[in-house]
Amino acid sequence: MTSFKLHPQLAADCLDVGALPLCRLLLRLDARYPWFILVPQRPDLTEIHQLPASERVQLIEESARLSQSMEAAYRPDKLNIAALGNQVPQLHLHHIARYRSDSAWPQPVWGHLPPVPYEAGVAETRVAEMRLMLADQLQD
Amino acid sequence: MTSFKLHPQLAADCLDVGALPLCRLLLRLDARYPWFILVPQRPDLTEIHQLPASERVQLIEESARLSQSMEAAYRPDKLNIAALGNQVPQLHLHHIARYRSDSAWPQPVWGHLPPVPYEAGVAETRVAEMRLMLADQLQD
Repeated sequence: MTSFKLHPQLAADCLDVGALPLCRLLLRLDARYPWFILVPQRPDLTEIHQLPASERVQLIEESARLSQSMEAAYRPDKLNIAALGNQVPQLHLHHIARYRSDSAWPQPVWGHLPPVPYEAGVAETRVAEMRLMLADQLQD
Repeated sequence: MTSFKLHPQLAADCLDVGALPLCRLLLRLDARYPWFILVPQRPDLTEIHQLPASERVQLIEESARLSQSMEAAYRPDKLNIAALGNQVPQLHLHHIARYRSDSAWPQPVWGHLPPVPYEAGVAETRVAEMRLMLADQLQD
């Protein structure tokens, strides 16, 4: 039995927010959008349906709770939620706050333009805010 | 209380496969990819988290069953599953079978190129095959 290890590309592209009961929660480092990623902490997963049913339920509940927190904090026009994995095969679920005014609207955000770095301290503040909003769920 | 009505853009872009316990199942008319869409048959929804918890569970179970059927039928290299809604706000969940050889790989399929029409009869055959695979779940 192998243990879960975060894919190095996700580790390089994101800040760690913390561990929910099932998923690692990450902030994607792209200042254009509030963008969080859930990664089920189970080895060798590439598709949602490979999770057992009880963990699929936990995944969608963690996704719903994150979505509600993002709506409360960022007031997006729309959330974009997606499990793609064409480039990073480890199962991960994007949650992106989208605005009619953002640079990719109405297209999806992937593959258009390179990410824009956060200014100093801004990403860390965003992580701290999300940790507060999800404090009752975070395991570490 | 309003009743569910499929968004006219989804009706125009898709063939109807049938009704699962929660969702209408559609085939997107784009011959480049086996592409199915789940639409929860509830009025005025735009985000997954707006569903009550019991229906979120039903949604992810219908998604998992559809995903398993698509893997069995189409042997994709990857499934892409997404709730975007930037252009059609009614909540709908894309399920797309992707291949390393397809025209958009590794990018997402949205917004690159116009859809390619199916040849005569091919989409109808695809609908009939999926109806057989999901026969125990279809309500009509």
